Amino acid sequence: MSDHINIGMFGMGNVGTGVVRLLAENRAIIENRIGKPVRITKAVVSNLSKDRGVDVSDILISTDFGHILNDPDIDIVLELVGGLDAAETIILEALKKGKSVVTANKALLAEKGRILFGAAHDAAGCFGFETSVGTAIPIVRALREGFAGDDVRSISGILNGTSNYILSRMSREGMDFDATLKNAQEIGLAEADPTLDVQGIDAAHKLIILMNIAFNGSFDFNALYIEGITAITAADIRYTDQLGYTIKHMGKVRKTQTGTEARVHPALVPQDHILASVNGAFNCISVTGEFMGPAMLHGLGAGPGPSAVGVMGDIIEAGRYILTGRQRPISPFSIPLEKWQPMEMVPMGRIRSEYYLRFPVMDRLGVLSSISKILAENRISVKSVIQKGGASDIGDAVDIVIITHEAVEADVQNALQKINGESFISGRTGLIRIEPE
Amino acid sequence: MSDHINIGMFGMGNVGTGVVRLLAENRAIIENRIGKPVRITKAVVSNLSKDRGVDVSDILISTDFGHILNDPDIDIVLELVGGLDAAETIILEALKKGKSVVTANKALLAEKGRILFGAAHDAAGCFGFETSVGTAIPIVRALREGFAGDDVRSISGILNGTSNYILSRMSREGMDFDATLKNAQEIGLAEADPTLDVQGIDAAHKLIILMNIAFNGSFDFNALYIEGITAITAADIRYTDQLGYTIKHMGKVRKTQTGTEARVHPALVPQDHILASVNGAFNCISVTGEFMGPAMLHGLGAGPGPSAVGVMGDIIEAGRYILTGRQRPISPFSIPLEKWQPMEMVPMGRIRSEYYLRFPVMDRLGVLSSISKILAENRISVKSVIQKGGASDIGDAVDIVIITHEAVEADVQNALQKINGESFISGRTGLIRIEPE
Repeated sequence: MSDHINIGMFGMGNVGTGVVRLLAENRAIIENRIGKPVRITKAVVSNLSKDRGVDVSDILISTDFGHILNDPDIDIVLELVGGLDAAETIILEALKKGKSVVTANKALLAEKGRILFGAAHDAAGCFGFETSVGTAIPIVRALREGFAGDDVRSISGILNGTSNYILSRMSREGMDFDATLKNAQEIGLAEADPTLDVQGIDAAHKLIILMNIAFNGSFDFNALYIEGITAITAADIRYTDQLGYTIKHMGKVRKTQTGTEARVHPALVPQDHILASVNGAFNCISVTGEFMGPAMLHGLGAGPGPSAVGVMGDIIEAGRYILTGRQRPISPFSIPLEKWQPMEMVPMGRIRSEYYLRFPVMDRLGVLSSISKILAENRISVKSVIQKGGASDIGDAVDIVIITHEAVEADVQNALQKINGESFISGRTGLIRIEPE
Repeated sequence: MSDHINIGMFGMGNVGTGVVRLLAENRAIIENRIGKPVRITKAVVSNLSKDRGVDVSDILISTDFGHILNDPDIDIVLELVGGLDAAETIILEALKKGKSVVTANKALLAEKGRILFGAAHDAAGCFGFETSVGTAIPIVRALREGFAGDDVRSISGILNGTSNYILSRMSREGMDFDATLKNAQEIGLAEADPTLDVQGIDAAHKLIILMNIAFNGSFDFNALYIEGITAITAADIRYTDQLGYTIKHMGKVRKTQTGTEARVHPALVPQDHILASVNGAFNCISVTGEFMGPAMLHGLGAGPGPSAVGVMGDIIEAGRYILTGRQRPISPFSIPLEKWQPMEMVPMGRIRSEYYLRFPVMDRLGVLSSISKILAENRISVKSVIQKGGASDIGDAVDIVIITHEAVEADVQNALQKINGESFISGRTGLIRIEPE
C-alpha cells in the first residue's frame, strides 16, 4: 500500500477546483481525520488549456480516461463530470478496478441507481454520493445510519437552491419570474440553461435518491410528478403573502394508506412554519419518522465550498477504510442488494391536497358563480374566495383567488380544464398546492 | 458467530423500554438494514419488580452486571443507566470483553471523555454515542463524517429540550419561570429534580462533546462557563420581545483570533432568525464551516421515541460491522487517539458580546445618569435605553433596560457589581447576551 491516499479526479469545474482548494487549505485537519496523507495526483479534463484559478501544478492532467482508471496507485476516483454516459463509464470502470468512487451526480443516481448500486454492492471499494442530494448536508448518512432504526413516514424538502433563491427574491422584491431568473443568471446563481433547476428536475433527482434510501427500494424517476417554478407570477406571490403563506419549491414524499405519494412542485407554506424561513440558496430537508417525530437538516445547497466539503466527507470516509484495509460494511443504499426491489408510487391524480387557484377573468356578472359551479361538480369545496384587481369598469381583467378544502388532484385538474375553456378566462390560471405539514 | 445479533441492555427506563418497543414495531425494517436478525436477550435493572409498560417476556432480566458482561453471546451492550460510576464500569468492562457499546450518557462522555475514548480506541467493538448529544439528530456523525473535510469555525445550539420548552411557554404565555417549570414537571417534560436541565449543565455536557469532535481535542468540562435559565423573568421576556428578540438557551463555541470561545447561557436571538422558530422540546444545532458555510440540524431533543431511534442507529451500525466481521475504522472522536490532545478555552471574562441589561431601580432623578457613568467608566457603550413601568410616583420601582454595543464580559461584570451596590437598585439585575450570529 502506498504511503499516501491517492486521488484521481474526473472533471475540474467549480466542484473539482473547490476540492483542490479545500484540500490545500485544510490539509492538516483532513489528514488528521483520515489518519494518512492524501493527495490529488491526477485529473482528467476535456479542455487542457483552461485556467482553473487554483494551483494545479502538482496534478498530472490528461484528457485520457485510462490516465486515471488504469493507474493502480489511484485509490479514490472522483466523478465530477456530471451528465449520464461518460459518468457512468467512469464509475463502473473504477469500481470494477477496486477503486473507491465519490460522485455528486444526482441525475445518474436517480435515473440509473439500480446499475450503480449493483456495481457498488459487488465492489471492494467504497461508493460515496452524499453531495448528490444535500451538497454538504449529510442527509444520505442521516437516512442510512442515524435514522435507520425508524420507519420514515415522510420527507419533504426545499431541494434546489436556484429555485429557492429565485422564489425568495420574487417574494422580497415583487419581481416577476423572468426578470428574477435573468438577475440570478447575471450573478452566477443560475446556469445559462436553467432548465434542470427551474423545471424541478434537479429537485426530482434528489427526491428519488432520498426515497430509494429511506424506503429501501427503487423508485422509477419517470413516474415522478414534476412541476417547476416557471409558472409562478408576481401576483401569486402577492396574493399568497396576503393569505399568510410563502411559496416554496418542494420535493415531497409520504406514506399513506393508499401507498407512497411523491411529487415535486411549488407549495404554499404558512409564514410561521420553519420552512418559510429557508431563504436564498439554502436547502432544507425535513424527515418525519414514526418514533423520532420530525427532524430537519438545513444548509447551502450549491456552490464550490459546500460541494467540496460534501465530496471531502466521502473521501475521508473512503480513506479511513483504505487505511485500515477494511471494506465498508454498509451497503450504499442501506440494505442488501437482493432486498432492494422496484417500488410503486400513487398516481398523481389520486393525491389529496388543499389548493390555491388563481383565475384571471373578465370582470363580468356570474363569473364567480360559473367557476363555483364547475368546482362543485368536481367535488371541490371552496374554503375562501378573494377577488383582486380594479373592478370598476365592466370587462376589465380581475383575478379571482380561491382556496379550496382538501380535494383530489384529478378532480381539480378536470375542473381547471373545464374552467379554462370558458370565455371569461382572460389568461393562464394559477394552481399551487397548500401543504401545511 | 451466532445467527442473531444479541443485545444486552443496562437500564430499562424510558429510553430502554423505548428501544424494546421500537425493535418490536420496526423489526422487519431494522433487520433488513442490519442484514441479520437482532434480539434483546438480556437486561440488567436495579428493580426487578417494576412494571415496564412493554412486553419484556423474551428478555432475561437480572440485577447482576455479570449476567450481561460475562455472557460471550452478547454482541452489543446498551448503557442506559446514566450517571457516572456504574455507567463507566459497564462501558469499560464491555469494551474490554470485545463487545460493542452504545450509550446515551452525555455526562460521562463530557466529564470522562478521555478515559472512554482511550478504551474505545483500543477495543475491537464499536462505540456509539450519537444519542448523547442530539437524541435522534445525527450531529455526531455529521461532525465526524459529513463535515469532516471542513474547518469548523463555530457551533451554536439549542441543546436542552426542557429549557427550550420552558422558555417557549414563558414567551407564549407571559408566565414566570417558577410557574412554567411547575407546569412542565406536571406534564412530565421536566424532571422532579430539574437541576441538570434548567441550570444548563445538560446543554454544557452536549457542547463539550461537540467541541471534542469538531476541534479534535479534549476540552475541560470544568472550565466551561455555564448559566441556566432560572434567572429569566417574565419582564425579560416582555422587554426583549418588544425589542424584536426571542430568548433561547444556547451552547456556543467559536474560533476567534484569541482562541476558542465557548459558553452556555441564555441568549437573545432576532425574531426573524431561524433559531427563533425552534420551539417546545425541539433541539437545534447550527454548525458553520469555512467552506460549507452555515448548516443546521433540528429535531426532538428528548423523549423515548427519538432516544430509541438514536440508540437504534448506533445498534444498526455496530450490527453491520459485527455481521461482516469488520472493525469500525473511524475513531469515535474522529482522529487517532495520540493526536487527541487537551485544548484550552478563552476565559469567559475575555469574550465580547452585546448585552441586554435590566436594572430594577427606584424611580429617582439621576439614576440613569449614575448607571451610564459606571458603564462608561467600564468601557461599555450604550446603544439604546428604555425605561419601563409606572413613572408617576417618585420612589416607585421601574425597570431601566439598556442594550449595549459590543463590550468585554469582564468589563460588564465589573460594572454590574458596582451598579448592584448602589442604593437605587431595588431588585436583581438581569443580563442576557445578544448573539446575532
